[in-house]
Amino acid sequence: MMIGINNIGVYIPQKRKSNLEKLEKFGIDENFLKNKIGVITRAVKEEYQRASDLCVEAFKNLQKKEEIDIDGIGLSIVVTQNPDYRLPHTSAVVHGKLGLPKNCACFDISLGCSGYVYGLAIAVSFMEKFGIKKGLLFTSDPYSEIVDEGDKNTSLLFGDAATVTLLTENPKWVIRDAIFETDGKQYEALIVRDGKLFMNGRAVFNYVLTSVPKQIQTLLEKNNLSKDDIDLFILHPGSKYMLDVLRLRLKLPPEKVPIDFSEYGNTVSSSIPIVLEKFLNEKGIGRILISGFGVGLSSASAILKRV
Amino acid sequence: MMIGINNIGVYIPQKRKSNLEKLEKFGIDENFLKNKIGVITRAVKEEYQRASDLCVEAFKNLQKKEEIDIDGIGLSIVVTQNPDYRLPHTSAVVHGKLGLPKNCACFDISLGCSGYVYGLAIAVSFMEKFGIKKGLLFTSDPYSEIVDEGDKNTSLLFGDAATVTLLTENPKWVIRDAIFETDGKQYEALIVRDGKLFMNGRAVFNYVLTSVPKQIQTLLEKNNLSKDDIDLFILHPGSKYMLDVLRLRLKLPPEKVPIDFSEYGNTVSSSIPIVLEKFLNEKGIGRILISGFGVGLSSASAILKRV
Repeated sequence: MMIGINNIGVYIPQKRKSNLEKLEKFGIDENFLKNKIGVITRAVKEEYQRASDLCVEAFKNLQKKEEIDIDGIGLSIVVTQNPDYRLPHTSAVVHGKLGLPKNCACFDISLGCSGYVYGLAIAVSFMEKFGIKKGLLFTSDPYSEIVDEGDKNTSLLFGDAATVTLLTENPKWVIRDAIFETDGKQYEALIVRDGKLFMNGRAVFNYVLTSVPKQIQTLLEKNNLSKDDIDLFILHPGSKYMLDVLRLRLKLPPEKVPIDFSEYGNTVSSSIPIVLEKFLNEKGIGRILISGFGVGLSSASAILKRV
Repeated sequence: MMIGINNIGVYIPQKRKSNLEKLEKFGIDENFLKNKIGVITRAVKEEYQRASDLCVEAFKNLQKKEEIDIDGIGLSIVVTQNPDYRLPHTSAVVHGKLGLPKNCACFDISLGCSGYVYGLAIAVSFMEKFGIKKGLLFTSDPYSEIVDEGDKNTSLLFGDAATVTLLTENPKWVIRDAIFETDGKQYEALIVRDGKLFMNGRAVFNYVLTSVPKQIQTLLEKNNLSKDDIDLFILHPGSKYMLDVLRLRLKLPPEKVPIDFSEYGNTVSSSIPIVLEKFLNEKGIGRILISGFGVGLSSASAILKRV
């Protein structure tokens, strides 16, 4: 049995906060905001919404695209580090809200910006091993719950969103291969203390720039592929500057590296599936490389292949 | 590649709190404590210790049993709902503390008492799919951080502990099959609100008694096995009374259902591996059924087969 991606549902809250209003306060100009940070407005959930609520909205949007046989779902995973409760896991809450069947495996994965690549790899391997034919992989990490609006390092960057990826035995895309890395010595570079997010932007940037191009190169070589064989590189938008530098290091043309997040922000584990959704049915694209990196520090890259 | 269990390291803090001192306060007698709850003393970590510290101690105890080639470890998972931080994941902190190699995948799984069965299934399928030959599966859920010592429902029950399971391609035990269930409508039956654990003991008990015997029966039938083919049933010790009723429902003799937790308590996802460790090398035992159930509500059962 070969499990892969069949469809993706996306939820980006309509409410926006503008970064333009913060320029003076933080002593930066519009040019810096647009070209270095790359986020003009950030999507923000309503205060009463929790991670599980964003998942439910993403699922509703998936249902608008295709009819889902809820009783056939045998796995439901939520990737989050901002769960509804310390316990139970958010996937149990979502299970209850969606009325998923009893014989459905549910668990949460705690990972940040590398979470979608990991989640996909975990879900697919679990389903193939245990013969589960239909599964849901949610990403939902509402950073508005932990970002300090007065913190220049983080408050211009992150937005709220959720996605759900429908995984089936009749997929449109499968994982050809994936690799994973961790640098736990730098676990404090992105951390929540006393309910607030702290980011050592320089440490994260240095980690990404030294690790990710090498990781992508290793993954390609391991699979006897060159960069030319990849039609699209969906790289996690840490910031626009990070994306630009990564792209130049990898010597990729701009049209192969979509930049999409200026209107809603860096949505952590949701950033990759939000972009991937736009290309799922795009003609002429046969191989996509996805790469996520951040909290941990952690990075993960995978090659997706059209079936 | 067939991945399975090679060895297990266990850490149970030496410090104990006695439940005998609480009899008067809670209006219960010693007979009730011993025969219904089944926990006489509870293992309690030092206040400065966090989930990652307990993992490190479990790993040290594993190292006393066998030499571990740290550089060969390609996966490290922590099962916990009481992580060191909201983010990063505790597995990244453990990665740093143990000096695990860069090309090591790390993530946390948020699950409670069903967490070991799930964790084993997730780790094995991930390693087999991505060709990872050596991995660590930690369980560490220090409930002393969330249990209210004045709460009669919970404060006599839970103990602190951690375990680490070494998974390799030369295993002593492999998973023959596993099944998983969720009842998310009952997500409030075990929940942390404002930092404190609340348990609806009756709801949990009813769920376990109606779901788990059926689940075990289904798993056996699916694999053309009878209860007689299983040498040992390691059932999560929700309480002694729950274990006893479960055993009677399943019509199992006492010698097939070890009860071990009276001196340290219900250690959540660590309860099963603590017992399993004692039987890993026991002669005459070829098949073990493990079953965990609780927070979610959630239950998972697996058949382990000696290689």
